[in-house]
Amino acid sequence: MTVIAIDLVAHYQAVRARSLGLVQGLSAEDCNVQSMPDASPAKWHLAHTSWFFESVILQALVPGYRPHHPRYAYLFNSYYNSLGDRHARPNRGLLTRPSLAEVLEYRAAIDQTMAAELPRANDEFKRLTEIGLNHEQQHQELLLTDIKHAFSCNPLLPAYQSNDAHATNWKAKESKQTPEWLSFEAGLQNIGYLGDDFHYDNETPQHPVYLQAFEICSQLVSNAEYQNFIDTGGYQNPEYWLSDGWDWLQREQIDAPLYWLDQRQEFTLAGPKARHNDAPVSHLSFYEADAYARFVDAKLPGARLPTEAEWEIAASANGDWYGQVWQWTSSPYQAYPGYRAPAGPLGEYNAKFMCNQMVLRGSSALSTDGHSRASYRNFFHPHSRWQMTGLRLARTRM
Amino acid sequence: MTVIAIDLVAHYQAVRARSLGLVQGLSAEDCNVQSMPDASPAKWHLAHTSWFFESVILQALVPGYRPHHPRYAYLFNSYYNSLGDRHARPNRGLLTRPSLAEVLEYRAAIDQTMAAELPRANDEFKRLTEIGLNHEQQHQELLLTDIKHAFSCNPLLPAYQSNDAHATNWKAKESKQTPEWLSFEAGLQNIGYLGDDFHYDNETPQHPVYLQAFEICSQLVSNAEYQNFIDTGGYQNPEYWLSDGWDWLQREQIDAPLYWLDQRQEFTLAGPKARHNDAPVSHLSFYEADAYARFVDAKLPGARLPTEAEWEIAASANGDWYGQVWQWTSSPYQAYPGYRAPAGPLGEYNAKFMCNQMVLRGSSALSTDGHSRASYRNFFHPHSRWQMTGLRLARTRM
Amino acid sequence: MTVIAIDLVAHYQAVRARSLGLVQGLSAEDCNVQSMPDASPAKWHLAHTSWFFESVILQALVPGYRPHHPRYAYLFNSYYNSLGDRHARPNRGLLTRPSLAEVLEYRAAIDQTMAAELPRANDEFKRLTEIGLNHEQQHQELLLTDIKHAFSCNPLLPAYQSNDAHATNWKAKESKQTPEWLSFEAGLQNIGYLGDDFHYDNETPQHPVYLQAFEICSQLVSNAEYQNFIDTGGYQNPEYWLSDGWDWLQREQIDAPLYWLDQRQEFTLAGPKARHNDAPVSHLSFYEADAYARFVDAKLPGARLPTEAEWEIAASANGDWYGQVWQWTSSPYQAYPGYRAPAGPLGEYNAKFMCNQMVLRGSSALSTDGHSRASYRNFFHPHSRWQMTGLRLARTRM
Amino acid sequence: MTVIAIDLVAHYQAVRARSLGLVQGLSAEDCNVQSMPDASPAKWHLAHTSWFFESVILQALVPGYRPHHPRYAYLFNSYYNSLGDRHARPNRGLLTRPSLAEVLEYRAAIDQTMAAELPRANDEFKRLTEIGLNHEQQHQELLLTDIKHAFSCNPLLPAYQSNDAHATNWKAKESKQTPEWLSFEAGLQNIGYLGDDFHYDNETPQHPVYLQAFEICSQLVSNAEYQNFIDTGGYQNPEYWLSDGWDWLQREQIDAPLYWLDQRQEFTLAGPKARHNDAPVSHLSFYEADAYARFVDAKLPGARLPTEAEWEIAASANGDWYGQVWQWTSSPYQAYPGYRAPAGPLGEYNAKFMCNQMVLRGSSALSTDGHSRASYRNFFHPHSRWQMTGLRLARTRM
Repeated sequence: MTVIAIDLVAHYQAVRARSLGLVQGLSAEDCNVQSMPDASPAKWHLAHTSWFFESVILQALVPGYRPHHPRYAYLFNSYYNSLGDRHARPNRGLLTRPSLAEVLEYRAAIDQTMAAELPRANDEFKRLTEIGLNHEQQHQELLLTDIKHAFSCNPLLPAYQSNDAHATNWKAKESKQTPEWLSFEAGLQNIGYLGDDFHYDNETPQHPVYLQAFEICSQLVSNAEYQNFIDTGGYQNPEYWLSDGWDWLQREQIDAPLYWLDQRQEFTLAGPKARHNDAPVSHLSFYEADAYARFVDAKLPGARLPTEAEWEIAASANGDWYGQVWQWTSSPYQAYPGYRAPAGPLGEYNAKFMCNQMVLRGSSALSTDGHSRASYRNFFHPHSRWQMTGLRLARTRM
Repeated sequence: MTVIAIDLVAHYQAVRARSLGLVQGLSAEDCNVQSMPDASPAKWHLAHTSWFFESVILQALVPGYRPHHPRYAYLFNSYYNSLGDRHARPNRGLLTRPSLAEVLEYRAAIDQTMAAELPRANDEFKRLTEIGLNHEQQHQELLLTDIKHAFSCNPLLPAYQSNDAHATNWKAKESKQTPEWLSFEAGLQNIGYLGDDFHYDNETPQHPVYLQAFEICSQLVSNAEYQNFIDTGGYQNPEYWLSDGWDWLQREQIDAPLYWLDQRQEFTLAGPKARHNDAPVSHLSFYEADAYARFVDAKLPGARLPTEAEWEIAASANGDWYGQVWQWTSSPYQAYPGYRAPAGPLGEYNAKFMCNQMVLRGSSALSTDGHSRASYRNFFHPHSRWQMTGLRLARTRM
Repeated sequence: MTVIAIDLVAHYQAVRARSLGLVQGLSAEDCNVQSMPDASPAKWHLAHTSWFFESVILQALVPGYRPHHPRYAYLFNSYYNSLGDRHARPNRGLLTRPSLAEVLEYRAAIDQTMAAELPRANDEFKRLTEIGLNHEQQHQELLLTDIKHAFSCNPLLPAYQSNDAHATNWKAKESKQTPEWLSFEAGLQNIGYLGDDFHYDNETPQHPVYLQAFEICSQLVSNAEYQNFIDTGGYQNPEYWLSDGWDWLQREQIDAPLYWLDQRQEFTLAGPKARHNDAPVSHLSFYEADAYARFVDAKLPGARLPTEAEWEIAASANGDWYGQVWQWTSSPYQAYPGYRAPAGPLGEYNAKFMCNQMVLRGSSALSTDGHSRASYRNFFHPHSRWQMTGLRLARTRM
Repeated sequence: MTVIAIDLVAHYQAVRARSLGLVQGLSAEDCNVQSMPDASPAKWHLAHTSWFFESVILQALVPGYRPHHPRYAYLFNSYYNSLGDRHARPNRGLLTRPSLAEVLEYRAAIDQTMAAELPRANDEFKRLTEIGLNHEQQHQELLLTDIKHAFSCNPLLPAYQSNDAHATNWKAKESKQTPEWLSFEAGLQNIGYLGDDFHYDNETPQHPVYLQAFEICSQLVSNAEYQNFIDTGGYQNPEYWLSDGWDWLQREQIDAPLYWLDQRQEFTLAGPKARHNDAPVSHLSFYEADAYARFVDAKLPGARLPTEAEWEIAASANGDWYGQVWQWTSSPYQAYPGYRAPAGPLGEYNAKFMCNQMVLRGSSALSTDGHSRASYRNFFHPHSRWQMTGLRLARTRM
């Protein structure tokens, strides 16, 4: 057990160090900006992930623990009603104080306490620490997509500088392989997580679902394929679009994926770059992914987005569908049968968002290692597209 | 086959006559008002249902048919992109012309043509007529809920006058029976419509789903039960609410079902009336229905909204769950496996709304007879509550 | 004095009868519609003008007077805080009850009581009656401009039918006369009303203003002249526009006067009609009138809108500048020096709007006879253009 | 003339140095934040004032001048349409790049060029330089009020640190003197600037206005006096308020001056501080100042806000009415008779805002020295209150 604790300490330090690495190439100004209500400043991510350890673990489990700052609980609570009032989300960019330096001190103080406590921690402490680390890794991806969005709003279109592996390797890989339709028979299948390794509550309980026979494509939809959808009037033809999607498209004047610039360029974390035909299309809303599938269906009857259950069964059987783009499924985000939200603040982690959002599966080029598993459920509103989100087609053989 | 045609003529006339009956007690002014973008004027319902017969049947199938008025296709198309441009929905209340009298002439002209065509109609014509009549019956319920909403916005709180059975019988019946939990075993079950009688495309194809063991309540949640939720702070406690629901509640300052007035009264089609403890609670949003279920779950672990599959299986086995209030389920409105939208305008009838809406099952006191079947799927956005919408609890035995 | 009372009775009856005449060609539906928050339904105008006599005169001065309906004071108060709470302005179109017939009964009842009281009325009663009649005449013009706006929102572009002189004579007359610059010397001038005839509080007190030498044009700006402004890029050139006007123009996508249709037509009370080159341009916002003046100034230095004092002095000297279009001045609407708002509800008639509005002088083709005098001050927000509003240029000789 | 040039160089350096001094106590994060669309980041102020010298002077008058950065003209143009397109005002806070350091380099580069050019500058160059310095001084005040607003949005309510005289001396002085009514006779008076010293175009031409006899108070309205207005229900009584003011107050839920905190504290540049009874009330909107005057009028008939002409005549005669708070007048901001906007970009400096704004006179504790003269016209929208704005009463003797 001591061995485990030591590993956890090392793991804790590695995860926390990576967050710091991600802001290495950012100025204090960059770390403070919030470009839309859905996004958060990098500084806020750094502080909020620390607050998570402080509020959920140290305050709850360490007798006599005194918070680092009396107001940080208010400033850096994201959405946990059970942990008290909080600063309004759209105003996070107004928090020029505490400064980046003070937030880094906050991180250091939390790390020091965690380092002191972890070696003597009980199982609950360790379990919560593991959750806190996974939580921080999720925020690492958000930090990158949020800064990408902020930079995209700057007419100078600056490039993000980093020594981090993911930051230098920010883009989804191209693929020259021919797409194949992988076939699956009808029948009862178990989906959801079963086991002892880390997983989120929303991946459980494992449960049977009845799947009809289906096919799913071995390849992601590429930029070239999506360009063809645009070139043949995809954004002008309401027959491909859900009613809410068509309204969204007209209201927001959408006619291409987010970050596509003129002249075959796209805005990336490394600044404007040429779009590659064979790279997976990215930064699509669910509405766009769904419209693309209907466009294909008109030529190839039965083409559609996969359900999350189909995706999970197929991914379990077909190796590495991770690390490129999150893949929209046709499944609204809901509780699995028999699911009950945990008591306390962790019950608010996933459960209260189970409405009006769609499930994405896989992981993206910006996802932290270790966040790629078949049962993992990501979720966003159907109009969201500032994450690296694309699609893989499924098909009902007609 | 002639026999069927005669029946269809009679049925056509009866359905159309009922729509006229519903506006008998309304003035031309009443028929013109639109109290919110989601609602439509009664006059518009009368015209739109006629336009449906004209556009989908007469223009498509009767050679040489000349539209009654060159601009009505523009004015009275609801949302069918495949049938051309249309007047913006929120502006329907601005159409003081055509007058109510002109719209009644339009109806008479369509009826005359339909009466001439139906006796010699082919199967496609008859099939579409049956859809048109079901469409009109759905609009009869909307006409009543829309006028109820309009009257609720008038400080005089007027009463709707009618000789129509549904209008005089506008309220959900009270029940003194003790609620019972009905139990169902786990297993594969078929849901969806299979057969030759009328049904909508979204009820098909029938398909197997795997259901875990569940219980479902024999009774609807009552006003008294919901009052208890309010009295114990249900609207002030975020732990019962989905995140989007809590935002909605705070933004809209919601603290009771729509139409609840002070002093134990509620606004009804017959004006303000005393609320009855044993009547089913009505005019709830999905968010409120879901919050109520979570409130019960805190005392009775496992209590929740049923899925639409559970509801359908249980309703098929347990008789008459109709004619009171529509019942929110936990199921987002989606295509059934293998579903394909019909070609042409009818493909827009149901399919393009399969996002961001929740399924309701059963039928309400205002639903037209014949719209109550186990496989029927109604759907509204989770914040909508101007329909007669309540709930029935399900439960996972813990 | 009895003679005066008799005249007043006859005048009362004539004014009230004209209001009824104006709705002769409107259906109950037409009378109920409200096409924007700034406009009111015709039925509301009929009721509100009656409420004015009831609230300001009968209730205040007739002992034991019992209101016609207990809720009408709430429904038909426009903006008088001193007379109690009121129905929200943007919701006036939702009042399908009371019906048009009931409002006409209300009018008849008020008329009957007024007819009984006027012969024995004291001076205060008569003074207030005169105000009430002028108030009703102002609403007659609003009724016409509001129904014009409502009809303009209907894709059928219906025509208003009336036997009323103003309704058949709805348009500003053309003029073939050559514009002349009329010159005025610098000096102290008195403006404002002095005398015993009817006038509004905001026209007083008469007071001296020092005017520099100025010129003012004998003619209104014509459609042809304004067309030239459009054709030479007037709406695309920010140098002509006030900052707020440029923002308004871009936000609302304005590129022509309100009601200008394609192909040299404009929407009028008589439906779409050809625009006449020599008719005064109408339905301009202050921003447009001001931009036009700056456009002229670029060629004719010193051209500008007149101040209201200049307009008043010039109009007093130059005959009939009325009955075509209201003429925007460069003067913000403010109290005259020494002005004090009357006590009681009439203090709210004009005074509380003395901010953010601009003064218009003259009168329009839709103004009621007797509302044309040199000291009369009309006022609207600078973006408003649903009244018949145009301009006459002034000039500072450079 | 060389002497003058040397003085101008020294003056240039002093003004520019003071701007740098103002951000001495701010972090790069503080300098980047924009707390509302009306406010701008401190960094933007630093850059925009430099851009003014670059665009209006160096590019226009120095042959071969090459802009410091090709995109800065786009990023740091505030509202000059004649100088090209520009970044949208509400998004200034998104400009984390250029960094504060880069903006300081930009300033240094401009200063170097200006220092090289000024000794050999012609009169036009010097005249524009003087305008640029006055422009920068106006932005110094805005920088302080904008950072005050930003800090007020931070739950930590931080204090601004500075060695600048104005920053340490940020508050309006208290006065224990008894208010006196100063009397002025009726007659023609000249207002507006006449002379050769620096002044803005909107202060000219000097022109006669006829003023009626008036009184004006020797003292500003104090916190204690305004507290009395609040305590006696001033914010709840519509009779004191302009119609637009009453709507504003209800929509924004206003019930005290901006920055008043609970428990007799107010937020200041030095953080939360006790409010002093004898200090002038500050951070009022025009609506509040006007309502206060009407409140006094109810007890002291004739009390009101002064016109800008009355203020100017009285201030010229009565010494130092500067350096405390800007004082709302009842005068809408308009062109003086005979005013013509300068050609080119400086024509946009003041003229295009002459609509929907009210004139303030005097100057505030945050105004730069040298911006206090009797003819100076400041202007803001009637709802604005993030500047140091209060009032002085006038009175028409009844």
